[in-house]
Amino acid sequence: MTKSLYFTFGIHNHQPVGNFPEIFEQATQAAYRPFLEVLEAFPEVKMSFHFTGILYQWLEKHQPDVLELLARMVQRGQIELLTGGFYEPILPMIPDRDKIGQIQKLTTYLREGFGYSPKGMWVAERVWEPHLAKPIAEAGVQYVIVDDKHFKTAGLSDEELFGYYVTEEQGVPLAIFPISEAMRYLVPFKLPEESIEYFRSVATEGGERLVVMADDGEKFGVWPGTHQWVFKEKWLEKFFQALQDNRDWVKIVTFSEYMQEQRSLGPVYLPTASYFEMMEWALPAKRSRELQKLAHQEGSEPYRPFLRGGFWRVFLAKYAESNNMHKKMLYVGDKINRLPEGKRAEALDALWTGQCNCAYWHGVFGGLYLNHLRTAVYENLLRAERLVDEQQNQDDSWVGVEPLDFFRDGSESLLVSTAAMNLYFNLGQGGSLFELDDKRKLFNLLNTMTRREEAYHDKLLQAEKAGEEATDGSKSIHDIVRVKEKGLAERLFYDWYRRSALIDHFLGEEVTLEQFSRAQYAELGDFVNQPYEARWRKSGRGSLRLTLSREGGVWQGERRCPLKVEKEITLQAGKTRFPIRYTLTNQSGEPLPVRFGVEFGFALQSGDTPDRYYVIPGRKERPRLGSAGETADIREIALVEEWLGLRVEVKLKQPAVFWRFPIETISNSEDGFERVYQSSVVLALQEATLPPEQPWTFGLTLAVVDTGAG
Amino acid sequence: MTKSLYFTFGIHNHQPVGNFPEIFEQATQAAYRPFLEVLEAFPEVKMSFHFTGILYQWLEKHQPDVLELLARMVQRGQIELLTGGFYEPILPMIPDRDKIGQIQKLTTYLREGFGYSPKGMWVAERVWEPHLAKPIAEAGVQYVIVDDKHFKTAGLSDEELFGYYVTEEQGVPLAIFPISEAMRYLVPFKLPEESIEYFRSVATEGGERLVVMADDGEKFGVWPGTHQWVFKEKWLEKFFQALQDNRDWVKIVTFSEYMQEQRSLGPVYLPTASYFEMMEWALPAKRSRELQKLAHQEGSEPYRPFLRGGFWRVFLAKYAESNNMHKKMLYVGDKINRLPEGKRAEALDALWTGQCNCAYWHGVFGGLYLNHLRTAVYENLLRAERLVDEQQNQDDSWVGVEPLDFFRDGSESLLVSTAAMNLYFNLGQGGSLFELDDKRKLFNLLNTMTRREEAYHDKLLQAEKAGEEATDGSKSIHDIVRVKEKGLAERLFYDWYRRSALIDHFLGEEVTLEQFSRAQYAELGDFVNQPYEARWRKSGRGSLRLTLSREGGVWQGERRCPLKVEKEITLQAGKTRFPIRYTLTNQSGEPLPVRFGVEFGFALQSGDTPDRYYVIPGRKERPRLGSAGETADIREIALVEEWLGLRVEVKLKQPAVFWRFPIETISNSEDGFERVYQSSVVLALQEATLPPEQPWTFGLTLAVVDTGAG
Repeated sequence: MTKSLYFTFGIHNHQPVGNFPEIFEQATQAAYRPFLEVLEAFPEVKMSFHFTGILYQWLEKHQPDVLELLARMVQRGQIELLTGGFYEPILPMIPDRDKIGQIQKLTTYLREGFGYSPKGMWVAERVWEPHLAKPIAEAGVQYVIVDDKHFKTAGLSDEELFGYYVTEEQGVPLAIFPISEAMRYLVPFKLPEESIEYFRSVATEGGERLVVMADDGEKFGVWPGTHQWVFKEKWLEKFFQALQDNRDWVKIVTFSEYMQEQRSLGPVYLPTASYFEMMEWALPAKRSRELQKLAHQEGSEPYRPFLRGGFWRVFLAKYAESNNMHKKMLYVGDKINRLPEGKRAEALDALWTGQCNCAYWHGVFGGLYLNHLRTAVYENLLRAERLVDEQQNQDDSWVGVEPLDFFRDGSESLLVSTAAMNLYFNLGQGGSLFELDDKRKLFNLLNTMTRREEAYHDKLLQAEKAGEEATDGSKSIHDIVRVKEKGLAERLFYDWYRRSALIDHFLGEEVTLEQFSRAQYAELGDFVNQPYEARWRKSGRGSLRLTLSREGGVWQGERRCPLKVEKEITLQAGKTRFPIRYTLTNQSGEPLPVRFGVEFGFALQSGDTPDRYYVIPGRKERPRLGSAGETADIREIALVEEWLGLRVEVKLKQPAVFWRFPIETISNSEDGFERVYQSSVVLALQEATLPPEQPWTFGLTLAVVDTGAG
Repeated sequence: MTKSLYFTFGIHNHQPVGNFPEIFEQATQAAYRPFLEVLEAFPEVKMSFHFTGILYQWLEKHQPDVLELLARMVQRGQIELLTGGFYEPILPMIPDRDKIGQIQKLTTYLREGFGYSPKGMWVAERVWEPHLAKPIAEAGVQYVIVDDKHFKTAGLSDEELFGYYVTEEQGVPLAIFPISEAMRYLVPFKLPEESIEYFRSVATEGGERLVVMADDGEKFGVWPGTHQWVFKEKWLEKFFQALQDNRDWVKIVTFSEYMQEQRSLGPVYLPTASYFEMMEWALPAKRSRELQKLAHQEGSEPYRPFLRGGFWRVFLAKYAESNNMHKKMLYVGDKINRLPEGKRAEALDALWTGQCNCAYWHGVFGGLYLNHLRTAVYENLLRAERLVDEQQNQDDSWVGVEPLDFFRDGSESLLVSTAAMNLYFNLGQGGSLFELDDKRKLFNLLNTMTRREEAYHDKLLQAEKAGEEATDGSKSIHDIVRVKEKGLAERLFYDWYRRSALIDHFLGEEVTLEQFSRAQYAELGDFVNQPYEARWRKSGRGSLRLTLSREGGVWQGERRCPLKVEKEITLQAGKTRFPIRYTLTNQSGEPLPVRFGVEFGFALQSGDTPDRYYVIPGRKERPRLGSAGETADIREIALVEEWLGLRVEVKLKQPAVFWRFPIETISNSEDGFERVYQSSVVLALQEATLPPEQPWTFGLTLAVVDTGAG
């Protein structure tokens, strides 16, 4: 009896919302298009394809012939199309309504665009949680595809993974296919014969076994060196040829066809999981690094099947900025829910666009650290919010104030809004302003990143210590230490508080700009990340006076001097100019010399382009936003963002010293370690001796000016 | 500045549905009652208590003064009561409707019985999944308590666990407290001073830290040796005294009080988790044993924080019998859903009673292997089903047939019902009868266990090999190898198919009763666990003829002879006597000698009590149900269960050999390894030479007779 088996091959193609158009273009030319072109010549090689909705929309507009090519193969029954969340969200991150809505949107798109009703679905980043079976099945999906690692985590062995299982949540069943890790090492990195050899080693006389290969399409042309290998050196053509040559015993099927021909292997329950590295990344840096070392060290083999990292949601707790976007997304979603059902569609679609996963997490490359991706998230969430506001037909003469647990973690936030702007204050952490949305520009001016330790930073430190720049091609892409510029290791600074605005500092007299910018200095006050109280008063509909205050302390030598800080912010409907009045009351009974600074960190997209610069009184040149420097005895500083058409002004009533410096993070990318501009910090610094029991005040104004362009 | 901290102490008391009354009695006298009595003398020691609804109901009936004692301390503000699922279900196992309903039932009970509105909840077996936050919070719960291990799994360190965090699902927040592992080792096993020392080592000047101790109440009096230690030697009194003596710096609070006084430590997301051992047990035996060895071997320390087992739901895939109860529960739940909303309450309560977790899983002790616990599950699920039937006001003259994916794993089952009985067939596995419910007795006659390898069996094998019986008191309870009788290791047999009924065997001529009973023999056919097809015909409302058939094969030496097996079962409304007609068609073209056996395995609660026995024609003595033996040339055998009032008869039209033997599992208990009777197997064995192409038939009748008693 001849041995045989089934083989199924799936491809997932995706580009994030907000990615640069040239990246879409390059990926299409290097990978998505040539793959389909090669496949067309092998009509007997059946495949499954998942394109995210984002990519379909782009292709439709810019490369419609790729879709026509795809459609031809769908029509002749060669290609099965997979659905998924339209904008590729991490499913556990979004409400069930959106899970179902996003899946149905892509399903409808495929039905209308290709006349094809998808049965299976690609799970974004293979992030699985056991309860997902229900909303996924309720969206009309019959099966999903995840890594075999997920199954092994539940105790199954390689031998048990040649087929599919069925899980259920609350009785709602969903089939799950395991992707073969063995195949992911073979395809496309090894010669096609090795895949055939592998097939031969696992084929059986019954012939009912299935081998599943499914992976990102970018591995076939976008990853370094792969376009040459897969297309120029014809790996893909040879692979398809090998499949076609062996089709008497390698039965090439789609997932659906296999399900029709073979029974499930039984019930399965999979825990919270993703691919191993994702779970490793979803841990605090220190833990992540420990796990990475352990997993790769000698003697770890027996432990490996039981080693696990965290799970996706940990990213939200790990990165306050990811959490900020996520909770903003939930907040806007709740606002949409309050609209009449028939009026939600447009806002929901904008919300869903803002749920695209890539900006919400970080592994080795980019993601959350890429400010253009975060900008796209805020742009879409703010668009959704604006669409809600428009539905409510309000005029512009309102100021809203809403105290709430914005972060849904028991902390207090205060949301203040006008038709033009949102100002979000974190009462638990310094009464700081953590989100400042320009609703006209759909832009959050405080969309920066705090500088944090990452597990891979020690590689950079080691590499720079050794003065080496390894580029040995034989190493895995994850192990290569490449840097885009020298001296990066010296720029690794870690912040001890979340970067935002209206942060109240008390500096020792010896603290320099450089020390402060490195977050390596002694803070004498306890006002940066400790609780403030809020009270507010409305004067009519159009004006609000908000006072944030804390009775804290400032260290003077060994002595803690009680001090009260009040900041009173005035908002007026339709205005984007906010007068802020600080009152410091020294409660120590003795005069208290202080060096008091108010920090703002504006995230203006780029630090080194000529259209983004500072305007400083008395200086002709316009330092770029990535520059650092000190200017004494001035009353204002402005940051100009010509591309967006924004000018941000910080004006003081009395002269002060202004420090400015960029926040730059250092993260990894496909091209090596790189510095990423996140924001421009401005610190207005004043020295004073506070008389006992007497209020010492000073005023400043924060203004966000629409310069019309953009 | 003096250092201080907060301390909170919670106790969880539980007995499973279906446990013996004397166990309730003993646990109350040994632990629950004396604990409260000691506490009453220390009014400043605040505590939190969780009793499951099962225990409240028992206490109310049998020891109401314990509840009065509890109520007094609740009224004086000393005790905070915790809610939970009324019948202590594993939350991810049951539908959201039941999660919320069961929690609200206990909350209402506490409100009405104690005038107390609980804010927090005990999570059964601390089985956590990230999406639980939503249904739990929607049931009105503000916080839950889980192990610190859960938090460490998400990457948090010990230093970060002195307080509580807040998680959210779809924006719905829920506070979570981590139970200190350090405290669980100290209490009650070490002297109270050691706890105070520990407090001193973690207290801070700010004094905002919280240490949480919470554990099963059975550790205080029920566990071996603990009653002597905790009460007779006054450990508990001394512990409370130590707390009271140090209350100037050890602030004794309830969970709720701490939440009022201190902010949350921030957001947290916890993966699928339970305590470490539970995750270890929730793996296939081989994997579980590997993990256990690795976790305890030398050199494993650095790996330990990252080692994980499975998660609770894996038990459903690991044990077909657990899965059977679970899917029966879902099935009955769906039936209840089809009732008008106002008519569901009573059936829902019976369903919830049948959701009590203890019978659904197995770790080291009892649980799923205890047939009285499984019996209680079926009794309650069948009661719920009967209540649904009663609502539908049907007369008794119906026979229902329902083909469906009962196991929700893509396999085909067939449910056949009359007013008196349910017969459930697994078409994918031999067309076997896997559930046979007597609806009058609320009893599933096939509620047996398949004999499976357990991770701890190798300890038994090693211990018996060494002839040792270690009882060294210094070892952990998990490591002691004690046995209730000698020779258990020789009784470790593992079944290769699920034990049930109407299983069709073809035995080699050399196979003996002993080999067969050990499941160590060659099966010549492929009819035991391969697919059958079903067809049926109704004759009016009151009668159904069901035919299950398979075209399979029987090995004769090297040759596989094609053979068709048909079994035709006739059901009549109101009758509990089922004529079954077998037709074997030899399709091999040559005469085929066979030794054909039909297996039934009736689970009748006990194998060695005088009121449960076989009745065998021609024999005066009545062998007990736990006996083994062969009787040739008889036409019938009966199994009598006097306690329930049931008599099960298997009658053949022609004489045959009857084999009978018990299925006994070997599992661990607090008193050591033990043999547990699960069921009595009867095999009706006939020898015949099947003529080619001619049907060979024989008839038998299965009858379930209500003998009135019980």
